[in-house]
Amino acid sequence: MKVGVIGLGLIGGSMAIDLRRRGFADEVIGMDADSVNAEAALKIGLVSRMANFDTLVAESDLIVLAVPVNAAVRLLPMVLDKFHEIGESCRKIVIDVCSVKTQMAEVARYHSMRRRYVGTHPMAGTEYSGPWAAMSGMFDSTAAIICDSQESDIQAVKTVERLYDTLNMRVLHMNSDSHDIHCAYVSHLSHVTSFSLARTVLDKEKSEKHIFDLASGGFSSTARLAKSNADMWVPIFQQQAENLVPIIDEYIKKVQEFRDAIADYDEAKIRDMIVESNKIRRIIK
Amino acid sequence: MKVGVIGLGLIGGSMAIDLRRRGFADEVIGMDADSVNAEAALKIGLVSRMANFDTLVAESDLIVLAVPVNAAVRLLPMVLDKFHEIGESCRKIVIDVCSVKTQMAEVARYHSMRRRYVGTHPMAGTEYSGPWAAMSGMFDSTAAIICDSQESDIQAVKTVERLYDTLNMRVLHMNSDSHDIHCAYVSHLSHVTSFSLARTVLDKEKSEKHIFDLASGGFSSTARLAKSNADMWVPIFQQQAENLVPIIDEYIKKVQEFRDAIADYDEAKIRDMIVESNKIRRIIK
Repeated sequence: MKVGVIGLGLIGGSMAIDLRRRGFADEVIGMDADSVNAEAALKIGLVSRMANFDTLVAESDLIVLAVPVNAAVRLLPMVLDKFHEIGESCRKIVIDVCSVKTQMAEVARYHSMRRRYVGTHPMAGTEYSGPWAAMSGMFDSTAAIICDSQESDIQAVKTVERLYDTLNMRVLHMNSDSHDIHCAYVSHLSHVTSFSLARTVLDKEKSEKHIFDLASGGFSSTARLAKSNADMWVPIFQQQAENLVPIIDEYIKKVQEFRDAIADYDEAKIRDMIVESNKIRRIIK
Repeated sequence: MKVGVIGLGLIGGSMAIDLRRRGFADEVIGMDADSVNAEAALKIGLVSRMANFDTLVAESDLIVLAVPVNAAVRLLPMVLDKFHEIGESCRKIVIDVCSVKTQMAEVARYHSMRRRYVGTHPMAGTEYSGPWAAMSGMFDSTAAIICDSQESDIQAVKTVERLYDTLNMRVLHMNSDSHDIHCAYVSHLSHVTSFSLARTVLDKEKSEKHIFDLASGGFSSTARLAKSNADMWVPIFQQQAENLVPIIDEYIKKVQEFRDAIADYDEAKIRDMIVESNKIRRIIK
């Protein structure tokens, strides 16, 4: 099968490598709106050739939208329109890999070709971006979510399951709404805390030049996500505003509670909160 | 030289291993208030024997207080009193390894044996604790702070520098006040954010059983410190209250600013804050 990847960054690029290498795709065709990225992707060999939008859609059996979610929301109806031109017999599939799913589901909902779209979210990545960050094996042993699969053709869902199986991912099914709330808690909130932590310490650095000399592994770990790319994250926060704002409010309350217990020298309260947090041990490595 | 380590957890245990293995100590004698830990430390071979307080101080040339900072504050004067009994000729040294230094400096300040104490903070560790967590090489390539060294005998400071050199650590000098403010920013604040993040998501888990199925590497990274031990952290927060509370307030303001920009769909503001945070790239790996 021919796979067309639109957006050759960390996710799209890493997919291109392993889908080709592991035999899921006979050929991977690429496209990237950024000409520097496009050239790099070719040089690195993430794809065998680049094509424009029409050619990529015409020649691919499966199209991956691996672009920021604001671009994906625009591209998905364009791809489905192309499928519509082919007509009823079209067996092409389009997937996206965005970490917010509700708005994607929304723009596809009433399209005549809705059933050829499968919404997915491979839960893997690093804080780096661009074709240079792409690597083989990045998805191994992580989870891939398929959303609203009842809205897609069974054959299309099966093919996408096979795609993620090729990437050695564990597939979970979930509806878009529930996916977005879950991700607000266990992914998007972490980014808000990291961005804010980084800004707090960077602010202090303006007056205390050597503050980072003491930064330990703990700080690096909690602030690592603050390296994340704005082009990817601005549209995530926009589309997740409704879910995320009340969750940030809950989080602020928790920080405030901790702050008050410290200010009150309330040993018992601080201890209770730490012990409560320690339950995270059974969940994360 | 004989080294006595009081507190055979992650830090004390890891020091014991490498100081002996790398020839800084001919023998390491141990003591731990917790009998389970004491027995484990002997079994694992972190130390060659255990001793009570009097014997340990009498037989050791250098004593390491590797206990939580509330215990260290009590133990330090007791050790210095023993030195005082020996008299002017005493060449023994006592160090602590706590991450808060001002109160330690305070309790030693007017002691006749103040100059035999060197306040230190090896900036290494993991989120695990106890003798089982101890390991060789844990300190390699990290930083050790020596505080207020002008208050200690030069020979004592030189010996402690040699100790940290044996552990392959880079030594920095700093006064206690400045140390504590720096650590509030680049270490203690990260713990507050992790504890609070863990509590926010664990709270949600009460109603949404499978929320952690989606937890990715990003979440693990930002919440990792929430595994940290209460016995160690409660006294740190108590002693750091004055420094830490205003810093937590700054942090809450930053989170609130992010929250408001998301709630207002203020794309430009969100982008500015992310790009600002990205400067962390030049600092952390």
